[in-house]
Parts: sequence; C-alpha cells; structure tokens
Amino acid sequence: MKSIETTVAMPISEAEAAVRAALAEQGFGVLTEIDVAATIKNKLGIDRAPMKILGACNPSLAHRALEADSSVALLMPCNVVLEEIEGGTHVAAADPFDLLQGPACDVVGEEASIKINAAMDSLSQ
Amino acid sequence: MKSIETTVAMPISEAEAAVRAALAEQGFGVLTEIDVAATIKNKLGIDRAPMKILGACNPSLAHRALEADSSVALLMPCNVVLEEIEGGTHVAAADPFDLLQGPACDVVGEEASIKINAAMDSLSQ
Repeated sequence: MKSIETTVAMPISEAEAAVRAALAEQGFGVLTEIDVAATIKNKLGIDRAPMKILGACNPSLAHRALEADSSVALLMPCNVVLEEIEGGTHVAAADPFDLLQGPACDVVGEEASIKINAAMDSLSQ
Repeated sequence: MKSIETTVAMPISEAEAAVRAALAEQGFGVLTEIDVAATIKNKLGIDRAPMKILGACNPSLAHRALEADSSVALLMPCNVVLEEIEGGTHVAAADPFDLLQGPACDVVGEEASIKINAAMDSLSQ
C-alpha cells in the first residue's frame, strides 16, 4: 500500500485537529473515526501507543469514482492514520491514486491524490 | 481489489441486520458505518441507489496484524459494502487476505479471510 506520510511535532490530539483542517481545505470531510488504542484496550485489555484512523472523503470525487465503478466502495473512505511517536505524531494517508487504480478511476484517483498530497504538505509547513 | 460477494433476497435494511449478525458470529464488530446514498444526497443533492459501507473489525486479528506491521492501519477496517439491487441486496466484502499481504501479515490475513468467507457463506444459506 503506497502511502503519503509526514510527521508533525504535536501530540496526537492537536495533530488530529490540524489534519482535519488540512483535509477540509482540500474538500475532504472525515466520515469515520476509529480510536485504535481505545478499541484494543476496551476489547482486549491491551495497552498500545495512541493511534487513530480517520476516514476522509471528498463527496464529489467519491461520487465520480462510484459512477465509474461502484466496487471502489470497497476501498472508501481514504484512511488517514495518526500514531503518537516520540516528539510528535506520525501521519500517513493511503494514496488514493494507488487505491483507485483501473482505467475507469485513474483520473479521479489522480485528482484525489493531488489533494491528499496538498493536505499533507500543508501540515509540514 | 479481490472481494467476497453474495446476494440476498432482502431489502438493504434487513440485509444490514443479517450481515451484522453474520459478522458478529465470526468475531467481527462494526466500527464504522457510512450511508453512501445519504451522504451524496446531503452533500451533492444527487440521488443514487441505497448503498452502505460497514467497517468490520475483529479486534484480536487487528491487534496481531498491527503488531506485525502498523502500516496495515491504512487498510483497516475491512469494508463490507451493501447495495440495493432489483430483488434484493448485493453484499461485497474486501478480502482480508488480499488487504493484509506481506510476509508479516499473511497468517492473520488468511485467518481473517476464512472468517469473512464464513460470514458471507452463512448469509447465502
């Protein structure tokens, strides 16, 4: 899985707010949210480093991709994973260009990839 | 994207209850839910056939996969897509064996795939 990654010098809660703002700037809303560490603690009683998965979606691009090939729903939304590391938070997004491969979706995948890259770039600045 | 598919002769709301029960039987909870048709209607004003994406997760398998390679979070949870079609509902799950490829995750991916296949088989009976 190709990913687009960056590291920010913020704790995970601040990083999440920054990621949400950067995604919104590119037209992506966050439709789903999984607190991985809390879920694993809750279900298995095991501690792990704070990690969250945000499910990002640009409705217009999603609609175009679904019209081209409804099976792309298997790969939606676009995951953005935040994990607390020493001194900050690692942020990794699934590359939509990699996710939405196939002749019907290449254009949408590329457009989505450019936007996700722009969101990640804005975090590093 | 390899998928595991079936069709059930139920409207989507009944199919969703059946899918959730079949997944629970295999140890998968539903952590996320996207009403695709409602989101597209709400954001773009466009009507489309009822479609939902359920994000299924088996906490124990997820934890093992994350311990082996934390980048698998980019591909979690396992999407199960329900789409209303004439006479019933089409159900398609992303194949975890396909999602969790790589030496560190093959065993977990295979175990998850067997369970998702069992859930889908139980729907067809």
